[in-house]
Amino acid sequence: MEKLYLGVDLGGTNIAAGIVDESGTIICDKSIKTNLPKSEKQLEKDIFNLCDDLCKENGYDINKDIVSVGIGTPGSVDGNRGIVWSNVNFGYTNWEIVKNLKEFFQIPVFVENDANTAIVAEVVAGNAKGYQNALVVTIGTGIGGGAYVNGKICSGCNYSALEIGHMVINLGGRECNCGRRGCFERYASASALTRDTKEAMIKNPNSLLWKLCPNIENANSKFAFDAMEMGDETATYLVKKYIEYLACGIINLINIFQPDIICIGGGVSNQREKLLDLLKPYIDQEDFARNAHERTKIMIAKFRNNAGIIGAAMLGVNNA
Amino acid sequence: MEKLYLGVDLGGTNIAAGIVDESGTIICDKSIKTNLPKSEKQLEKDIFNLCDDLCKENGYDINKDIVSVGIGTPGSVDGNRGIVWSNVNFGYTNWEIVKNLKEFFQIPVFVENDANTAIVAEVVAGNAKGYQNALVVTIGTGIGGGAYVNGKICSGCNYSALEIGHMVINLGGRECNCGRRGCFERYASASALTRDTKEAMIKNPNSLLWKLCPNIENANSKFAFDAMEMGDETATYLVKKYIEYLACGIINLINIFQPDIICIGGGVSNQREKLLDLLKPYIDQEDFARNAHERTKIMIAKFRNNAGIIGAAMLGVNNA
Repeated sequence: MEKLYLGVDLGGTNIAAGIVDESGTIICDKSIKTNLPKSEKQLEKDIFNLCDDLCKENGYDINKDIVSVGIGTPGSVDGNRGIVWSNVNFGYTNWEIVKNLKEFFQIPVFVENDANTAIVAEVVAGNAKGYQNALVVTIGTGIGGGAYVNGKICSGCNYSALEIGHMVINLGGRECNCGRRGCFERYASASALTRDTKEAMIKNPNSLLWKLCPNIENANSKFAFDAMEMGDETATYLVKKYIEYLACGIINLINIFQPDIICIGGGVSNQREKLLDLLKPYIDQEDFARNAHERTKIMIAKFRNNAGIIGAAMLGVNNA
Repeated sequence: MEKLYLGVDLGGTNIAAGIVDESGTIICDKSIKTNLPKSEKQLEKDIFNLCDDLCKENGYDINKDIVSVGIGTPGSVDGNRGIVWSNVNFGYTNWEIVKNLKEFFQIPVFVENDANTAIVAEVVAGNAKGYQNALVVTIGTGIGGGAYVNGKICSGCNYSALEIGHMVINLGGRECNCGRRGCFERYASASALTRDTKEAMIKNPNSLLWKLCPNIENANSKFAFDAMEMGDETATYLVKKYIEYLACGIINLINIFQPDIICIGGGVSNQREKLLDLLKPYIDQEDFARNAHERTKIMIAKFRNNAGIIGAAMLGVNNA
C-alpha cells in the first residue's frame, strides 16, 4: 500500500492540511481560518481537529493510514528538537509544538520553518531530488530561500539562515524594512516588480501596460512580462532591469554555494521557461565557476502551489 | 607522545612545509621555490623531498613520527577523492595528487583547496573550535572564504563554493576581473583599500597619509588606519567607507549562513580589535537575526601567518 503523509501549512491567516503521497501529490486537503489571537493549546487542538476531520471525511484512520504529520510554520524553528523559538505572527516563544502535539497524535510529528519545507519538498520529491546541494529561491512578496548543503538543511546557529532577500546587492540603494538599504528583495521580489511597473506606467501613459491593466491599482508582476511579449518598449525595459536584479542575486548565491541546482518558486516563477531563458545568459557570463566540470542547474520549482502542505508532509519522508 | 602532522602549502611561487602539533603550533618548517613550469611527477617528488628533508633535519622519521600529510593547493579540489580537478597556476587538470603521493609517503595523504584549509585550521584548532557552522573570511589581495555547515566543508557541486569576493554588493559598480561589476572584493579587499588610499592621497595633498607614506607607491592597507588614529580627516573618511563596504559583505554572509562564528583573516585582520570595534555596530544594527536567541560571533582568525601550513596539517586531524 502506498505511504501517506499529513502536511500542515500553518499561516497567520489560514491553516491548510493535506494528505500527500510519497511522490508529493496531494490526495485531499482542507483548510480553516487561523483566527488569531489564540492560545498555543487552542491552536494545537485546532491543528489536530483539522487533520482528524480531513482524514475522516476522506475515509482514512489517522493513526492507521498515515505515516507521520509535518508542520511548516513561519519563525525560528529548531526542527531537531521540535521547538518554535519565536514566531512573531502568533506571538509565541519557546513553543514546544512537537511535544505538545504528541498528546493528540499517535504518529510521529515533525516541524520545520516554512522556508525550509520548500527545500525539503524539492529535494525529497521535486526537481532537486537526489541532489546533496540545492537551493530554493522563492520570489513572492519578499524573497525567501532554503538550502541543502551536503545533504542537510542549512539552518545556521539560530534557524534563521537563508534570509537571502536581505542580502544587499545595491549598496546605499532602496530602503528595506529590515533596516538595511539595497536588499535583493527590494529589487527582485514580485512586489518590487509590481511597484516598478506602477511607476513606469505613471511615467509612460502610452505604454501598452495601460491596455492590459486600465486600473493601475490592479497592477501585478505578471503585466510587465505580458506587455513585453506584445512588443511594448516600457515593459521590455522593465523586464530587462528586473532580470538584471534577479540575476545579480542568483549569481551571488551560485558563487557562494555552487549548489547542484537552484529551484525558483513563488509568483514570478509562473513565467517558467520565459524567466529561465532571460536569466541564463547572465549566469553563463558571470558564474565564477562557469568553466568548471560541473555547473549549477537552474529550474522552476516543481512544487509552487501548495508547496507549504507538500513540504511539511515530506518532512516525514526526509526523517524516515 | 604528542601527535605530529605534516602540512604543505603549495603555492605558485613557494612550497612551504611544516611539522605541526595538534594545537596548531608549527614545530619547524622549511620552504623551497616552486619553480614552475614543471611536470606533475617532478612537483610530487619535490613535495616529498621537502617533507623528508624537513623531518630529517629536525630528527624525525617521516613514517614513524608523523601521523599524516595534508596538502593545501589553489584550484578546484575534490578532497574526498584526492583529486585536483583544475589548477590554473600549475596548468594541471584532473591531477590525482593523493594517489600519486602515496607512492612516496607511507602515511595517509590528504588534499584540500587552500581556502578550505583556512576554515579547517580554525575549526580544528583555532577560534572556531567546536562549532558546527563557521566561516573564515580572508581579506588580502582578494577576498576568499571557507565555510563549515553542519560540521562539514561547504564545497558545492564543483569544489568552487565560497567565492565570496565575487558576491556583488554594488550593482553596476567597480569592474572586476571576474566579469561582474560591484564585487565585494573590489571594495573591501586589502588591495581595494590600498587603491582607495592612493586616490585619496592624490586628492588630499595635506593629508597626514603623506607624512606616513611619502612615496605613494608604498601605500598599503595599513596607512589609512594609522593616519585615522592620528586624527587625519581624509584617513578617517577612508576607513569609514572601507568599514561600510566590509560590513555590507559580512552582514550578507550572516544573513545567508547565520554561522556560529565568522573568523576574519588576511592582512587587514592585523588591525585586530580596532577592526572588530568598527565593524560590530553595523552588524548589531543590520543582522536580520539581531534579536535571535543565538547570534553570530565575530573574531579575528587565530591562524593568520602560516595558516596555509597549519590548515593543511589539520586535514589529518579533521579526517582522523
